[in-house]
Amino acid sequence: MVSEQKIADVSFESLLRIFTIPEGPDSTLTQIEASLSQNLNQFLREHIVAEEKPLHEIEKDFSSALIPEQPAFVSEHTEHLLDTLVAHSVHTSSPSFIGHMTSALPYFLMPLSKIMIALNQNLVKIETSKAFTPLERQVLGMLHKLIYQQEDDFYGKWMHSANHSLGAFCSGGTIANITALWVARNNALAADGDFAGVEKEGLFRAMKHYGYEGLAILVSERGHYSLKKAADVLGVGQQGLVAVKTDENNRICPIDLQAKFRQLKAQNIKPFAVIGVAGTTETGNIDPLAEIAAICQQEACHFHVDAAWGGATLMSNTYRPLLDGIELADSVTIDAHKQLYIPMGAGMVLFKDPNAMESIEHHAQYILRKGSKDLGSHTLEGSRSGMAMLVYAAMHIISRPGYELLINQSIEKARYFAALIKAQDDFELISEPELCLLTYRYVPKTIQQALVIANETQRSQIHGLLNELTKIIQKKQREAGLSFVSRTQLNPRQWSGLDTIVFRVVLANPLTTKDVLQNVLKEQREVAKRVPNLMSRLEQLAEDVSRGQGH
Amino acid sequence: MVSEQKIADVSFESLLRIFTIPEGPDSTLTQIEASLSQNLNQFLREHIVAEEKPLHEIEKDFSSALIPEQPAFVSEHTEHLLDTLVAHSVHTSSPSFIGHMTSALPYFLMPLSKIMIALNQNLVKIETSKAFTPLERQVLGMLHKLIYQQEDDFYGKWMHSANHSLGAFCSGGTIANITALWVARNNALAADGDFAGVEKEGLFRAMKHYGYEGLAILVSERGHYSLKKAADVLGVGQQGLVAVKTDENNRICPIDLQAKFRQLKAQNIKPFAVIGVAGTTETGNIDPLAEIAAICQQEACHFHVDAAWGGATLMSNTYRPLLDGIELADSVTIDAHKQLYIPMGAGMVLFKDPNAMESIEHHAQYILRKGSKDLGSHTLEGSRSGMAMLVYAAMHIISRPGYELLINQSIEKARYFAALIKAQDDFELISEPELCLLTYRYVPKTIQQALVIANETQRSQIHGLLNELTKIIQKKQREAGLSFVSRTQLNPRQWSGLDTIVFRVVLANPLTTKDVLQNVLKEQREVAKRVPNLMSRLEQLAEDVSRGQGH
Repeated sequence: MVSEQKIADVSFESLLRIFTIPEGPDSTLTQIEASLSQNLNQFLREHIVAEEKPLHEIEKDFSSALIPEQPAFVSEHTEHLLDTLVAHSVHTSSPSFIGHMTSALPYFLMPLSKIMIALNQNLVKIETSKAFTPLERQVLGMLHKLIYQQEDDFYGKWMHSANHSLGAFCSGGTIANITALWVARNNALAADGDFAGVEKEGLFRAMKHYGYEGLAILVSERGHYSLKKAADVLGVGQQGLVAVKTDENNRICPIDLQAKFRQLKAQNIKPFAVIGVAGTTETGNIDPLAEIAAICQQEACHFHVDAAWGGATLMSNTYRPLLDGIELADSVTIDAHKQLYIPMGAGMVLFKDPNAMESIEHHAQYILRKGSKDLGSHTLEGSRSGMAMLVYAAMHIISRPGYELLINQSIEKARYFAALIKAQDDFELISEPELCLLTYRYVPKTIQQALVIANETQRSQIHGLLNELTKIIQKKQREAGLSFVSRTQLNPRQWSGLDTIVFRVVLANPLTTKDVLQNVLKEQREVAKRVPNLMSRLEQLAEDVSRGQGH
Repeated sequence: MVSEQKIADVSFESLLRIFTIPEGPDSTLTQIEASLSQNLNQFLREHIVAEEKPLHEIEKDFSSALIPEQPAFVSEHTEHLLDTLVAHSVHTSSPSFIGHMTSALPYFLMPLSKIMIALNQNLVKIETSKAFTPLERQVLGMLHKLIYQQEDDFYGKWMHSANHSLGAFCSGGTIANITALWVARNNALAADGDFAGVEKEGLFRAMKHYGYEGLAILVSERGHYSLKKAADVLGVGQQGLVAVKTDENNRICPIDLQAKFRQLKAQNIKPFAVIGVAGTTETGNIDPLAEIAAICQQEACHFHVDAAWGGATLMSNTYRPLLDGIELADSVTIDAHKQLYIPMGAGMVLFKDPNAMESIEHHAQYILRKGSKDLGSHTLEGSRSGMAMLVYAAMHIISRPGYELLINQSIEKARYFAALIKAQDDFELISEPELCLLTYRYVPKTIQQALVIANETQRSQIHGLLNELTKIIQKKQREAGLSFVSRTQLNPRQWSGLDTIVFRVVLANPLTTKDVLQNVLKEQREVAKRVPNLMSRLEQLAEDVSRGQGH
């Protein structure tokens, strides 16, 4: 391929060529692009979830820390990527990849992504983004309206106001949550008398000024792990992330929330934010948002809703009521790369009050000058890409009713799967799907019967072995690569809070059929047979129990 | 276009279609893709830097907060995006867009980006990224080696170690700097006796335990504005970001750094990090890194280098010595989306010690389990895309010597431009280029002569008018859209620290020719003529000075 763009001779002329747009449909690069598209499409059509190649083997292909001294042909390197990377990646949009929240993608976003990549706008400032800035502000306005449903004149007034902000785009839910808690912390420890505010004087002086002994963020036991990071980075400390009890449906207990407020105040600890979860990561449940909002109002405490995953449910008029009370939140996190089917990297945080973000406003001389519409003055991140464009396009092409259909079918498919699991005599549903997420495990019928009559010691022994079994089945199923479910550890009420390893399934891919779900159970049952040692130890325990030999 | 993917009827069948890969080269979506590519290429070939359309006009196209109730055709919406968005975006890779650090892109990255978007991997955990995880670890290893130049067995041992990390990929330099300072803060306030560490107990108790009155981060006056955000979010407070004096070349003064350490210690304030800048945002200068490193070692203080922009210079064997001492830093920020010519969103932070990031390690049950190789246990962000792939590809296709050529030509072009400015009798170079960034302003010859003999009051008056003039020229040039330079405010030594507005130019685009640079000056000279009021007020002042009428 002599005509190809290569800088094998590493001359400046050949370098100039790689920055020049290829001309016409016959250029080598256009041909490489067409062949790459074909290869990718074939991969997406035919690839199982993941090829069985051990990680330590894959690592051998990625083991040199040396930056090459010899340039590679584009075509050769593309082949290399297809062989070593693409072939050993995970087919996240496969209908049988049902273990995580990473979305299948609407195919029209592939060509549209080109606009984002080729234009390479930087949303931190208007000088490097121009029309992308009002577009991003509109997308934030759309999500704000989806949550808070303000009138048109509200958006007419605030959406494009230079000194206000309805929210921030960011790389993902973690940064979105940190941004919300940062705002809440700074507003709770604001300038007061001769104290210039926590943003200027820092946390230590803020605490001394206000006379607090500590700070706290209240969240249910089922809150996302990243909130620990948030508490750490913000100087609150992980111990300041106070876990509130949940009920048998993994929803926060308002009574315990009130009790926690009382306990903290008695210790002179300031709770500056409560987080309600709309779609917990592990069980997909939604906290009673309206009740939390009422408590927060009474306590004059910032109310944040982590709806990173579940927020998209607002698109469905049918299931929107599940999130009642979200409109009372001071801030809300939504990830468009989860149930809004956008590629990775489209997190958002929305604030009810267009003035809320003032407490984290930043300016600089060469950009973000006061009065400018630069988005960077209200974001934790600096330089950012034009991801908002993909959300904008999907909103228009799929439209609200299209999203409603997607959300509804996911929830209904999860209900079907829950019913299917319950209909088997060797599976146990651990958590019912409130949205499209559920957990379950494999428990042979004889073991189920033994568990009913077992004493506490026996039950705990059986549970331990079942945990082993669930882990092994999940691992072997993942390695086989035909389908993928994830696993997590819960402490379900029905098993007296015993550590319980479960399969976790997220059913967002519209291409996942009932057949796929039936096959997942079939495969798990078969994998179980292939660990005879563990199975026979379980059978032995069950026999002991039925013979009354337990102690 | 009846055959097109549309969900106009919003049926589940039509929704399934948008998630299905189009078949063959004749599908409507393939046709849309080809036409979009053509349109984009034409835009990139022919578009001036930016169309002249006022922002408030553009905003009208992005004014509805309502999520559409009617789906749009993909082709129609693509047209809409081309008209309203693409046409009014900024051509950041135009050879005459020389105002910011946003890169021109090597064209081969456009098709390769497809791999990233279509596979939609989530790098937070290996279950959703597989081969992308070792790839990202390799890229971090490559950058680590570029900086620290350890032996092969170092990388063999640490690069793929589950419990270690050579650094973190992140969306950009701001998050990279925050990550470095977070690690530094947590290591400075680590667990000690019955104190469990700042990450667990929070900043207030940490300060009480260690008996400090405050925390400080030391950085030159020319440090990036985002460090204020970092100080704020980490609970240190913006006042804890202590500005160290710079010399006439905008480089930190080691003597003042030592003085600041003494002053802080006298106030019982703990300086936990010093930041050396390798390529200041406003003037492109490099701090004396080896000298700072020596001071940090003496003070047992974390030494971080913000080489977000300048770090790519390490690719050039010729200019690498400018960054001498960077290998002594505890951590280094490099943005691949700046001088490594990668699309927006490829920030990185590297740590010398593979154990350094332990202080911010996080785990969760359903992912990031201990001993896993999940990248998410050492990153501030959670879900992240596979951007590392583009860095990997560019490293192979351009190779180290290719990057060297790019870096060298940029620096040499900046030197050419500096010489060109000095050769004009109506321009003034304000800061010499150390890398490929320089600042200057337009000052008519008579005004230059007047400034030499003016008294202090007159000088300050003339300066004020020149600042107005620079602002207007920059704005009018931006609005005309043929070329773009940015502006900032400096306090140059040669003007006794007077507030001085300057043009700021970054010369990274290899397609920027000498002609382009000559035309930029010509255009600025012509724009100046079109503000006769201001020009005649300047002439009047100059006349007053030469007549000795100043007071």
